[in-house]
Amino acid sequence: MALDDPIAHPDLHAALARRYGGDEPSGPLLWNDVIGHLLSHRSIRAYRKDALPDGTVETLVAAAQSAASSSNLQLWSVVAVADADKRAQLAQLAGGQQHIAHAPLILLWIADLARAHHIAARSDAPAEGFGYLESFLVASIDAALAAQNAVVAAESLGLGTVYIGALRNRPEDVAALIDLPPNAGVVFGLVVGWPDPDRPASIKPRLPQAAVLHHEGYALEPQQAAIDSYDATSRIFQHGQGLPTVGWIAQLLQRGASAASLNGRQRLSAALKALGFGLR
Amino acid sequence: MALDDPIAHPDLHAALARRYGGDEPSGPLLWNDVIGHLLSHRSIRAYRKDALPDGTVETLVAAAQSAASSSNLQLWSVVAVADADKRAQLAQLAGGQQHIAHAPLILLWIADLARAHHIAARSDAPAEGFGYLESFLVASIDAALAAQNAVVAAESLGLGTVYIGALRNRPEDVAALIDLPPNAGVVFGLVVGWPDPDRPASIKPRLPQAAVLHHEGYALEPQQAAIDSYDATSRIFQHGQGLPTVGWIAQLLQRGASAASLNGRQRLSAALKALGFGLR
Repeated sequence: MALDDPIAHPDLHAALARRYGGDEPSGPLLWNDVIGHLLSHRSIRAYRKDALPDGTVETLVAAAQSAASSSNLQLWSVVAVADADKRAQLAQLAGGQQHIAHAPLILLWIADLARAHHIAARSDAPAEGFGYLESFLVASIDAALAAQNAVVAAESLGLGTVYIGALRNRPEDVAALIDLPPNAGVVFGLVVGWPDPDRPASIKPRLPQAAVLHHEGYALEPQQAAIDSYDATSRIFQHGQGLPTVGWIAQLLQRGASAASLNGRQRLSAALKALGFGLR
Repeated sequence: MALDDPIAHPDLHAALARRYGGDEPSGPLLWNDVIGHLLSHRSIRAYRKDALPDGTVETLVAAAQSAASSSNLQLWSVVAVADADKRAQLAQLAGGQQHIAHAPLILLWIADLARAHHIAARSDAPAEGFGYLESFLVASIDAALAAQNAVVAAESLGLGTVYIGALRNRPEDVAALIDLPPNAGVVFGLVVGWPDPDRPASIKPRLPQAAVLHHEGYALEPQQAAIDSYDATSRIFQHGQGLPTVGWIAQLLQRGASAASLNGRQRLSAALKALGFGLR
């Protein structure tokens, strides 16, 4: 399955410099077209309105279904929303994210225990196990693995994507909009469309590997220098984007400061229970 | 970013037939090398013991970090375990999955709120928001997006992988083994190694798209025929693998039957709270 020989490639250093903002791993890395493709990811929030090629949704879903599924349970579904009115409503429910209304498609990824409960009811079989947090987590993780494969496939076709976690601000309203039965909920959306070439997105630098990658055991102390270095990197990136140079640490702390800073998602547990999930 | 022109490709039909066991989507699909690569995924449970090339871990982590991260919070980490004793212990903790001991590497994907709490404590800043289910879910989803990019990268290098959800059977013991601080937990493992060519894995068919993909709104009723068709497909696959031909429905119902059928994961909520997660 090797698509290319991993060799020291002239594009590798440039790709790593963009991904880490100059704080890239020091050792030798491997390279092929697929890895180059993955490293070049950027989230797209400015789209042309143009339609997608026939078969795009089915292709992305075939890629998504090709991701691993825990014990092959396949506890996820996806609702493709192309209808302009529905997209406008979803944009509102996500706090006014207009790219949802502008791009031609949003895929809504469902933690789907409804199918499992339906099958159990049809067989008059017990379904107690689906009422536990574990089952919701399996559904959410499998939806994420699937969606990421869809992202990789979409980008290989020249399409852009952006995940929409803000649909969890209003889980019941989102569920009602797409007729979800009990035991099903949207864990996130994924906008898909043609990137607007007049408003190109940049690759956002990530934390140095020294903060994220550990060998044999985890440690907090060695992360400190990497975190501080990254805060400086993030300010340089923000400056280059014409954004306030607040740094990454302040953004992280702002999100975690209080229940209210979760923008409604502090009631996610209650909302999921209202949608039927046991979460025991 | 298009790596290849999407065209009707002779490999497409064969790839879809393997992925869907004959029940493939009827319309036109798009094809390029990356999509072909994604469609050919299979989980590998038989490995050679051979070492991985230098730089493999760093390359997979660079791919992982290139996946989207909710609000760029980067609430995940990864612990690479190559030590043979530790891998043997992890194999036991995962219910005796010997491929963890046989393959040279397992990556442990961490829902990491410890870094965020550490940064907050260092700044004497409040961290109430990290105590909610939403924050644990963001960490778990972002870890899954990252891990799936690592899988795609690994397979592009000819390596095989398999996710290990069974590490959630014993979250506290797994956390202790790799010195996790409070507010961090392994959501799943990912074994990485060279597939044993003498024991090749097959591509496992998935549910027809009619069960998983919905347009504009979700519906259960239209899934029934697809589910029954897939149950027959899964029996054919099981027969071909020399496995008991129990079908998919029975496997799904077995997993959901009771708390005990979750193999310890019925106490995931309690275990995560013991590890410090708020889950409010």
